Amino acid sequence: MPYRIALAQINTTVGDLDGNADKILRGIERAREAHADVVAFPELTVTGYPPEDLLLKQRFVQQNVERISRIAEATTGLTAIVGFAHPEGRLYNAAAILHDGRLADIYHKSALPNYGVFDEKRYFESGRRVPVYRIGSMIVGVSICEDIWVEDGVYLEQAEAGARLLVNISASPYHAGKGREREELLRARARRCNAGIAFVNLVGGQDELVFDGQSAVVLPDGRLLALAEQFEEDLLVVDFPSEEAPPPPRRADSRVERVDLRASETRNSRGAVAPRIEAPLDETEEIYRALVLGTHDYVRKNGFEKVVLGLSGGIDSALTATIAADALGSANVTGVALPSPFSSAASLADAQELAHNLDIALKTVPIARIFDAYLGELHAEFGDRPRDVTEENIQARIRGTILMALSNKFCWLVLSTGNKSEIGVGYATLYGDMAGGFAVLKDVPKTLVYRLARHRNAKSGWAVIPENTLRKAPSAELRPDQKDEDTLPPYNVLDPILEAYVEKDMARDEIVALGYDPETVSRVTRMVDRSEYKRRQGAPGVKITPRAYGKDRRFPITQTYRG
Amino acid sequence: MPYRIALAQINTTVGDLDGNADKILRGIERAREAHADVVAFPELTVTGYPPEDLLLKQRFVQQNVERISRIAEATTGLTAIVGFAHPEGRLYNAAAILHDGRLADIYHKSALPNYGVFDEKRYFESGRRVPVYRIGSMIVGVSICEDIWVEDGVYLEQAEAGARLLVNISASPYHAGKGREREELLRARARRCNAGIAFVNLVGGQDELVFDGQSAVVLPDGRLLALAEQFEEDLLVVDFPSEEAPPPPRRADSRVERVDLRASETRNSRGAVAPRIEAPLDETEEIYRALVLGTHDYVRKNGFEKVVLGLSGGIDSALTATIAADALGSANVTGVALPSPFSSAASLADAQELAHNLDIALKTVPIARIFDAYLGELHAEFGDRPRDVTEENIQARIRGTILMALSNKFCWLVLSTGNKSEIGVGYATLYGDMAGGFAVLKDVPKTLVYRLARHRNAKSGWAVIPENTLRKAPSAELRPDQKDEDTLPPYNVLDPILEAYVEKDMARDEIVALGYDPETVSRVTRMVDRSEYKRRQGAPGVKITPRAYGKDRRFPITQTYRG
Repeated sequence: MPYRIALAQINTTVGDLDGNADKILRGIERAREAHADVVAFPELTVTGYPPEDLLLKQRFVQQNVERISRIAEATTGLTAIVGFAHPEGRLYNAAAILHDGRLADIYHKSALPNYGVFDEKRYFESGRRVPVYRIGSMIVGVSICEDIWVEDGVYLEQAEAGARLLVNISASPYHAGKGREREELLRARARRCNAGIAFVNLVGGQDELVFDGQSAVVLPDGRLLALAEQFEEDLLVVDFPSEEAPPPPRRADSRVERVDLRASETRNSRGAVAPRIEAPLDETEEIYRALVLGTHDYVRKNGFEKVVLGLSGGIDSALTATIAADALGSANVTGVALPSPFSSAASLADAQELAHNLDIALKTVPIARIFDAYLGELHAEFGDRPRDVTEENIQARIRGTILMALSNKFCWLVLSTGNKSEIGVGYATLYGDMAGGFAVLKDVPKTLVYRLARHRNAKSGWAVIPENTLRKAPSAELRPDQKDEDTLPPYNVLDPILEAYVEKDMARDEIVALGYDPETVSRVTRMVDRSEYKRRQGAPGVKITPRAYGKDRRFPITQTYRG
Repeated sequence: MPYRIALAQINTTVGDLDGNADKILRGIERAREAHADVVAFPELTVTGYPPEDLLLKQRFVQQNVERISRIAEATTGLTAIVGFAHPEGRLYNAAAILHDGRLADIYHKSALPNYGVFDEKRYFESGRRVPVYRIGSMIVGVSICEDIWVEDGVYLEQAEAGARLLVNISASPYHAGKGREREELLRARARRCNAGIAFVNLVGGQDELVFDGQSAVVLPDGRLLALAEQFEEDLLVVDFPSEEAPPPPRRADSRVERVDLRASETRNSRGAVAPRIEAPLDETEEIYRALVLGTHDYVRKNGFEKVVLGLSGGIDSALTATIAADALGSANVTGVALPSPFSSAASLADAQELAHNLDIALKTVPIARIFDAYLGELHAEFGDRPRDVTEENIQARIRGTILMALSNKFCWLVLSTGNKSEIGVGYATLYGDMAGGFAVLKDVPKTLVYRLARHRNAKSGWAVIPENTLRKAPSAELRPDQKDEDTLPPYNVLDPILEAYVEKDMARDEIVALGYDPETVSRVTRMVDRSEYKRRQGAPGVKITPRAYGKDRRFPITQTYRG
């Protein structure tokens, strides 16, 4: 008879011990209704992921352990694998094996990632024990996230000790294409071990991270048996073919401990479930959905209903508004046109058309009189000095102040609209267009902004984002006839240079060797180096590339290295 | 004959490979002039500390290695111990042993701190090799910073293998009282090992960290033999009593490698140097000096000459201005009075008196007309809704915008003036009074602000900071008759609650058990939890407590744990 595993791909909230415990209890209930032998939940299910320095609070850790005891009581007749933080002298990133009403065993994560966005060695010790579990008719190995990514990890020892099914509970942060990487990895690991893999992943947004789900079951020959939804909660119930093979002889040098968990019920009566493979999204849609989920969860998990953003008529604010409307509903998005003396009538018309297309509220607050008031008071200091970036920044900061005033008065979260290219070179005003609680496009390079906008229009079958917004040359409209390309290289040159420098850590001459103008490369890399102080005060935003600004890239502000 | 060691306590700059190499070369030259046998430099001397993700750039690492080769050539006739990043398959936090013109050996740091402000496991592998060096007449063990803090560290193996002098090269971040902790530690380690310790520490500011120097030599019996300046560069030259004792028999289980470095010169002709013990500063002066050095180095290492800050007549801006004037000179500090309709005449007078006392420029830019312009444009949206925090924040943001405009026009760095108590509870306006490149008092609780101000006045012998500023009740003056205590508990209640919650991770009931009102404790801890989003967009500032906001405390913004 096949072995039935349920993968409970749930959306937890960091710190919400009761809410997360309730979701786990509901998952166990649904798994029981589905006659599952085993149900598995994502990494650190009880605390949410990543809990960061909440883990330094002893009371928090103690309360997360209490939730495990409560959940254990609900596991009559089946086995649940639940992530939690386990204090045992030191602290461990752990999986509780809850079996038939009791805490049967605890597995400690062995491989702790401490690179990129990860800081797990700040909190956890590496586990040393390698258990396998006989659960009913199946020998199961349990591992946690990074454990399955490292070469020769615990999974190999578990398979050598007879595990036929390797359950990996994960919180694997999304970036574009990560799903394919993961699937390839799981297939390779299954073949290497000649064992099945059941991978359950977290879903949902947490500050800068999005977890995309796509929990999966892979057969021992590497074939994909089942794949859950991406960016949605899901319960993937899978019948895994089981053979009643005796475990292999124990290797003399094996450190694996065998733990026997007798099943309390026989499940001969249940019917078979057909395996389900959700069709993966194409790459552009996948990124779009990541931005929608990341925005939704940041806004809602932080207790906001509604958002506000400036609409300039440009592509960045148009895409941000569209994502917000898709994430939160049109009724929860307010756009504000903030025309300056240098704004064109066409820009205002584009903003109006967008708001109409999205069916969102549009307010207009002109900034000219406020700008004049600033210039009047500053005249005594500035005298007849020529206008420069100062006056441009004042306008940007007036806009930021107005959006924040609307935020304060009406409890709307401000979305800022800058893209990764601008943020990279510092072509953005601190406390101005950078003002806001969440920067939706923070990790989206400008060329990808265009691709996402066209994709969204194509999906609707009409120009939700106005054609004029897509066609016109990008401009901040902070002085007469200003264009981004007056200051920056064209975005199709800028973006690959930024990718090489920021995401691939390439040196200047290496980037020049790719075929870019040495002057341009020097100018761009210098702009990146000199604008770290701005990024440090920027809002969080959804990570969608292998290296986002934020926890992923930790640069000193004070540093004089120029390659 | 005594063994002469020189501890080169230098102020490096992160990323400035050439500048740091030049400082090392000058240190070697001075040590040679002082007839030293060995000269030691701080941890990661060549790269500056901490280099953070610069270490992910291969070219940067390669160029730091090239500097070591260049420095090696300058070591004719003596031994230099220089910190650098050593790539050998993986990357190591290393000490180069440069002896008589060549790279003689490399020690790899064994204990890598990955807590608090430290992320060393993000970059480095732990070293496994434990060498000791016979350098002339002395057997020397070399270790790096954290190596000496851990129990049973490499220092113990080195001592057991005959090392009589343990050289530790460090970058030990300052917090109040750290010097005494370090001295106690070094004395205990020396006694435990029955060996001398020569501890060389970095000095200078780097983003949020200040390194305070106080390099030291401790005798095998635990007595302090020599102590360098605090917060200043110094070259501490010490004659360490040496006995020509043979090394102890090699223990069978020792992994220590002995490396022989024959001295090329005999130094019989040199005269003795008297040991020098700099008097430690009292605690308040020590904190003040840390703030001065941290501010100086942030401003200057980032290429600024001058700073600007708002002067409200209140204690925070008065202390910030005083620190800035002490750090940069009065001619480089401009104060700006930004009176609102709610500012009292007394406040303006206090600001004027302070500027006069400090001999700094004072400008006055009133904000009332700009405020009216905002209210005029927002009237259509706000209608007849009552005034609330919105209108207060608009005023704070006008001030931020004016200071940033002066910054843009005149290339002055804006100092923000918020203290740790305000920043903790979020009693500060994002993009308003939080605007600025550096937050001098970010880690200084309000009660300590007063103590520092009184100390600074006492040091001068007169009220540089006006008595009225010290005496009056704190107020943001953003609405009529506003006082901080309308919103917050008195600071002598607030500060210990914040310390318990933020610095000691105590739970609410534990804080109540200290004798605080449960309602007040709940209100304060909730304010801390809910204002993380503001702190994330705040400027860096000098760490002076065991736990500062910043890299030291990594809290999720999105989290619903309320204890």
